[in-house]
Amino acid sequence: MSGAIRIAVAGYGNLGRGVEAAVARNADMSLVGIYTRRAPQDVVPLHAGTPVFGIDALAGRERDIDVLVLCGGSRDDLPVQGPAFAARFNTVDSFDTHARIPEYFEAVDAQARAGGTLALVACGWDPGLFSINRVFGEALLPEGATYTFWGHGLSQGHSDALRRVPGVAGGVQYTIPSEDAIARVRAGERPELSVRERHVRECHVVLEDGADPEQVRQAIVSMPHYFEPYATTVHFISAEALARDHAAMPHGGFVIRSGNTDADQAQVVEYRLALGSNPQFTASVLVAYARAVHRMRQDGQVGARTVFDVAPGLLSPKSAQALRAELL
Amino acid sequence: MSGAIRIAVAGYGNLGRGVEAAVARNADMSLVGIYTRRAPQDVVPLHAGTPVFGIDALAGRERDIDVLVLCGGSRDDLPVQGPAFAARFNTVDSFDTHARIPEYFEAVDAQARAGGTLALVACGWDPGLFSINRVFGEALLPEGATYTFWGHGLSQGHSDALRRVPGVAGGVQYTIPSEDAIARVRAGERPELSVRERHVRECHVVLEDGADPEQVRQAIVSMPHYFEPYATTVHFISAEALARDHAAMPHGGFVIRSGNTDADQAQVVEYRLALGSNPQFTASVLVAYARAVHRMRQDGQVGARTVFDVAPGLLSPKSAQALRAELL
Repeated sequence: MSGAIRIAVAGYGNLGRGVEAAVARNADMSLVGIYTRRAPQDVVPLHAGTPVFGIDALAGRERDIDVLVLCGGSRDDLPVQGPAFAARFNTVDSFDTHARIPEYFEAVDAQARAGGTLALVACGWDPGLFSINRVFGEALLPEGATYTFWGHGLSQGHSDALRRVPGVAGGVQYTIPSEDAIARVRAGERPELSVRERHVRECHVVLEDGADPEQVRQAIVSMPHYFEPYATTVHFISAEALARDHAAMPHGGFVIRSGNTDADQAQVVEYRLALGSNPQFTASVLVAYARAVHRMRQDGQVGARTVFDVAPGLLSPKSAQALRAELL
Repeated sequence: MSGAIRIAVAGYGNLGRGVEAAVARNADMSLVGIYTRRAPQDVVPLHAGTPVFGIDALAGRERDIDVLVLCGGSRDDLPVQGPAFAARFNTVDSFDTHARIPEYFEAVDAQARAGGTLALVACGWDPGLFSINRVFGEALLPEGATYTFWGHGLSQGHSDALRRVPGVAGGVQYTIPSEDAIARVRAGERPELSVRERHVRECHVVLEDGADPEQVRQAIVSMPHYFEPYATTVHFISAEALARDHAAMPHGGFVIRSGNTDADQAQVVEYRLALGSNPQFTASVLVAYARAVHRMRQDGQVGARTVFDVAPGLLSPKSAQALRAELL
């Protein structure tokens, strides 16, 4: 499409696949291609027409790609890829190691400034949409408390931990926000709640042949850090049920700001996500922000940015005039 | 306070009083004064130290006021005051006649450009925070539907209509979102729902001496436009109960975006406000946006803006660096 925003994807796992799908739903965008570290012929894209290239083929494509969406992992891929690609392309990524965001931001910022590109880091829903709501909450209600709850959602890290327990053939772990804690916060109570008081953990486990269920259950619920501090339940299921009922990657959660505007008046602001597919939704967020990155770069901006720096109207394909008339 | 953002208030009703209270809760702001059309000596400010002036005293104060918060009404005050004050001051207002926002925006924009000022129009929660969530919803989930529900909240227009019914000595009307409609939308069903299917109306009425309750009830529930199209309930209460239990101005509501990222995956994003005091919360929003207006003007911007043009980080007193470290 002439004039379309030309998007490319670096990395093709669940997130990259979600970006491919999301670009197809946005009429003002086109997908230049998927760039993968695997052999391109081994990658089957969602849409038959999507070109697949090796990652090295990005060399020399600077003028053909408006925004490169980085779909690698935060632990091993992005710390290297983020700064390296930002030196040559406008980028969006979902770097989500909260504690390391400042140093990652600085590394990407230096490369983007040197390269004359714009790079949006740590985008998605947390960090991302949830972060925006934390900022709004504090700014609107300076006297108050902010609560973040995660779930109902599949936790990759806890599912991995579960599968390392002897006797476990497979399984998934869901993080579930405590109904009681949410009810108290919604009612304006403002309790002090640790992460463990805000969440419970639910495990669905397939046993290895001959494994003792009670022994496995005990090994799980007593695992330090991962399960011991939480109210943890373990359900034993068949391999068929695991494949059939637990293949989706739901997630979501709540950001609630509870504050007072005077001694008598309590105000509660709540933002809630109920996501059928975490990677597909995260990809949709990245793609909307890719539109904003393209516009901000067109406007002359360079360097690293976060969602805090992006005006909401830039996310929409509609003009500022149309937004004022239709959505304000 | 040296270096504080100097705020002034034009108009001192419930909203103006809320702005006075909100400025006091933001350490980076100071209140220059309240400017009123009433005789200044008749206005008793919330805080004894707040200076009160006649509205004409704003003449010549251009260099002493960073942002003037306009607290007049949308029907009669703002259409005149908005453009007139924007010619001389940076302003924030809560113009909320949705259908007239485009023409109001143009009128303010022309004066602000001519005057070299920055004017944020139609700020608050709807239009305002709800509008932002409508834009996010569409941009993140292009395939889907957006639902706005209002309430549980006191409706000024419907309360006025109620009080015009013969036999009614006083009363208030609450708009209440339909629990059934919300449950269907939250479940991802995406029903077609008119405004009347999304809300019910609850009236609390004090009868005049000798008035017939059933006659009054019939007159209310059959009133065209206001009550007839809705499921309306009427409760008769005493004048004492009205004064005691219905003096607060609660409001709020929901913006829910329900969308799909593929045929199987439904995603639901919900934003909810539960406000003990509508004017106090609206005032808190105006004050946070006044901070953003000051910063954007410092950055050289002139003309009219809406909440769609304001990056979230500008609302916070914290630096961009602190926001990235603490809230991302």
